[in-house]
Amino acid sequence: MAEIKSPLTPLIDQLCKLPGVGAKSAQRLAFHLISVTTQEVEVLANVLTKTRTHIKYCKSCFNISFETTCFICSSNSRDKTQLCIVAEPKDIYALERANEYNGLYHVLGGYISPLDGVYPESLRIEELILKLKKSHFNEVIIAINSSIEGDATTLYLKSCLKNYKNPISQLAYGLPVGAELDYTDESTLQKAFSGRQKVK
Amino acid sequence: MAEIKSPLTPLIDQLCKLPGVGAKSAQRLAFHLISVTTQEVEVLANVLTKTRTHIKYCKSCFNISFETTCFICSSNSRDKTQLCIVAEPKDIYALERANEYNGLYHVLGGYISPLDGVYPESLRIEELILKLKKSHFNEVIIAINSSIEGDATTLYLKSCLKNYKNPISQLAYGLPVGAELDYTDESTLQKAFSGRQKVK
Repeated sequence: MAEIKSPLTPLIDQLCKLPGVGAKSAQRLAFHLISVTTQEVEVLANVLTKTRTHIKYCKSCFNISFETTCFICSSNSRDKTQLCIVAEPKDIYALERANEYNGLYHVLGGYISPLDGVYPESLRIEELILKLKKSHFNEVIIAINSSIEGDATTLYLKSCLKNYKNPISQLAYGLPVGAELDYTDESTLQKAFSGRQKVK
Repeated sequence: MAEIKSPLTPLIDQLCKLPGVGAKSAQRLAFHLISVTTQEVEVLANVLTKTRTHIKYCKSCFNISFETTCFICSSNSRDKTQLCIVAEPKDIYALERANEYNGLYHVLGGYISPLDGVYPESLRIEELILKLKKSHFNEVIIAINSSIEGDATTLYLKSCLKNYKNPISQLAYGLPVGAELDYTDESTLQKAFSGRQKVK
């Protein structure tokens, strides 16, 4: 697009930096933002700055938190004998929404991906090993995406934990709820077959 | 989605209010915003507040502007004998990008749409009539979307301007550049036929 001298250009340029926001969406957002009250925009601006300034990582599980210890690690109602290993903080919130798990978490901080410069040393695996030595867990659950990088990370984790004495499990792979066999990809069907469960 | 106590919830709630941003995109934006530097977020927050606080409407054409008179009305290189009537400020920037028109604009401020409570009196038609009386224009061009509300607005405008002595024109309707006849909707084809131009 040609450069037009609009008073909204600085705002549009900033909005364009957001993921998934192109020139057209940024313009739409900018026109929306000047159509709402100044107060509403101030609330958004304040919450942006406040969140970014005060956010930190929980010193225990590396979840995002405003406090030194996140709401999960500091809660008394969590089962402290279960540990779930996830790649990123957002995975915690996805698992929490499912309301199925009530233990603690450990955030690795990404996936092993040498092409992107992320090596095993970049992840919080050392902190995990230390945590497993210090605390007792009845079960360690690996909950990492099944992607190329995710599978590499899981494989590496398994090799690191092979001498751990207590059970280690991994989220089940198979058909998602509501799936139709006809429309399911081959890799998922392979996983669903190899992980089939006895019913009788 | 169930309510989860995330430190990002206040930010996600604010981002959800933006047009076209749902719960999932808002979460993605929030995680992006805490991954960039505090300084970058402050730049965004400042430009948001600054733009919203200082934006006003040009007193002459009602384009958005930081000054009392917008950059088009205050420019010496514009042809002040041509007036283009548009519905919203964003239409000005679309037309400016086309780099085909060098006259002045008049922003109506919306479309006639009684269902949404927008009546002819809500638009800046009175200001337009006054402007046409005070200044001399060789041509008045109506550049309003061809939608139900747009067509109603154009029709109303035409009736208001029927006694205006100088030429009044309207943007051409027809096939967009690159269109294939096979994929063009019936209304556009009807317009393209009825507006066909003599070549010999």
